[in-house]
Amino acid sequence: MKKVVVMGGGTGNFTVLRGLKNHPLELSAIVSMADDGGSTGILRDELGVLPPGDVRQCLVALSDSSRMMRSLMNYRFENGGLGGHSLGNLILSALEKVTGSFERAVEEMGRILYIKGKVIPVTMHQVRLKMILKDRKVLEGEKEIYLSHEIDKGYSKIYLEPFPKPNPQALSEVMNADLVVLGPGGLHTSIIPNLLVEGVGDALTKTQAKKVFICNLMNRKGQTTGYKVSDYLNEIVRYLGKDVFDYILVNNQIPDQALIEKYAEEGDLVKNDLSDSRVISANLLGELTEVKKGDIMKRSLIRHNSKQVTKEIINIVDHL
Amino acid sequence: MKKVVVMGGGTGNFTVLRGLKNHPLELSAIVSMADDGGSTGILRDELGVLPPGDVRQCLVALSDSSRMMRSLMNYRFENGGLGGHSLGNLILSALEKVTGSFERAVEEMGRILYIKGKVIPVTMHQVRLKMILKDRKVLEGEKEIYLSHEIDKGYSKIYLEPFPKPNPQALSEVMNADLVVLGPGGLHTSIIPNLLVEGVGDALTKTQAKKVFICNLMNRKGQTTGYKVSDYLNEIVRYLGKDVFDYILVNNQIPDQALIEKYAEEGDLVKNDLSDSRVISANLLGELTEVKKGDIMKRSLIRHNSKQVTKEIINIVDHL
Repeated sequence: MKKVVVMGGGTGNFTVLRGLKNHPLELSAIVSMADDGGSTGILRDELGVLPPGDVRQCLVALSDSSRMMRSLMNYRFENGGLGGHSLGNLILSALEKVTGSFERAVEEMGRILYIKGKVIPVTMHQVRLKMILKDRKVLEGEKEIYLSHEIDKGYSKIYLEPFPKPNPQALSEVMNADLVVLGPGGLHTSIIPNLLVEGVGDALTKTQAKKVFICNLMNRKGQTTGYKVSDYLNEIVRYLGKDVFDYILVNNQIPDQALIEKYAEEGDLVKNDLSDSRVISANLLGELTEVKKGDIMKRSLIRHNSKQVTKEIINIVDHL
Repeated sequence: MKKVVVMGGGTGNFTVLRGLKNHPLELSAIVSMADDGGSTGILRDELGVLPPGDVRQCLVALSDSSRMMRSLMNYRFENGGLGGHSLGNLILSALEKVTGSFERAVEEMGRILYIKGKVIPVTMHQVRLKMILKDRKVLEGEKEIYLSHEIDKGYSKIYLEPFPKPNPQALSEVMNADLVVLGPGGLHTSIIPNLLVEGVGDALTKTQAKKVFICNLMNRKGQTTGYKVSDYLNEIVRYLGKDVFDYILVNNQIPDQALIEKYAEEGDLVKNDLSDSRVISANLLGELTEVKKGDIMKRSLIRHNSKQVTKEIINIVDHL
């Protein structure tokens, strides 16, 4: 079985993992540990645990348990002192307390959820993501960076504090992979935080694995406004020191105009400006209309379609 | 296999169920739904769920999953907005929200924990336990009753509000049982609340099952001070309308004097004043000294010993 490593964090990862799960692959998800917003942020602050949110999403994506169980893990309490917490986050944090290690917590949760594959935190150290803007303003934490509209003006540095040692398992997974998938996901908040961990960029340049970058569909206003595919690639290559990618997977399907307008407040479409042989340009959105319970509905989200992305990755794997 | 039903709520139930679980019996735990203290009380108030605490304890008692999993379910968060919540309570409450019913939540949790037997809430209605004291003061809620030191002075009424319909499964379990075990546990807060549900007393008088009452070891100061075994029995019989018990299991082992003195603030030892043929008088405490990792230690709690209680119940079952 081919070994496929998916690196990132957040919803982008979820889409890719959920699709690949149903194929005969040895799957690993390497997850950024920079999240400090919402439920995860509160748990980090109040309990001193490692960030559970992105890990939970990957575990659920790889889970072979019932839909009910998966809904349970993503269930968010609505009221009172628990308001905003996802149950899966609470279970991971309690497991970390009971077992004494985040690593064991992730393993145990994987067992409870019958996951196919492995979920591997990129580091086991408690880190904060920081960014120094060109005007010397410092953005503290992933949440603050995620919410900023000033990144466009330029930044001089993005880093994890303290500079973390990698989880050795993350490096060995990259070294032993047949294919590494990077993205889609928040450029500064989900993708780059993995590359800021000691040795990860090195492993990505040294591994014999083929590397595919899946580019985002939408730019983020005030952060990557007007970015084209090459801008994403260049930004990532800055942290790798070298353009290591064998494939660049980009979407060629234009969403419904009304939907683009609806998204205008959040950001603009990523345009593809690359045409070299590495570029795989495909419909990654799927059908623009969907039929649900007899009603024809236009897609209401500009999101990667799990099946379409999976099809393209499997096509790459089949040719390895 | 003989069908044994254990009725109560709280720690007393836990001790009996944990012991019986390892014997070839068809076990059911019928659980009072009056709890409104601590984590359970907050969840009832903030989320509008049914009380998870006692149900969780029974589920854990009957669980065949790993010690780690059981520790996880009983894990209590220590800090912040989550402080005091037990993880198992949070899971049950989230399951109730996700499945839309407490009944299904208990079933699903039973599956997750690989329980042996069944856990059956005595009612599925949202109820509050209330007590009117002789001086007309009203105690609102199980927690307030549990903490009161004025019950000794006499009360005129204890009731559930609203007067709840029973969970039909609870009644049918009682009707089809070979043995029903009542107690040990808080007289007014764990045992009687079951008997206040419509039809439960009736089922206990009509069933062909043998009935055993396990009497508490200690009285509760300001509540049952100076109670003897007959006082417990009479109080319960008030709510049944009839003395239905075939066996009364009482402890005959005197705890260490220093330990009795340590407990003086909480209450005094229950003395046995019954000698009819129904009374089974046995050592229910086990050894007064215990050897742990080479150290000889005196028992530090006056608690029923699970093994000793189980031995006596199995002895009854073997003679049915």
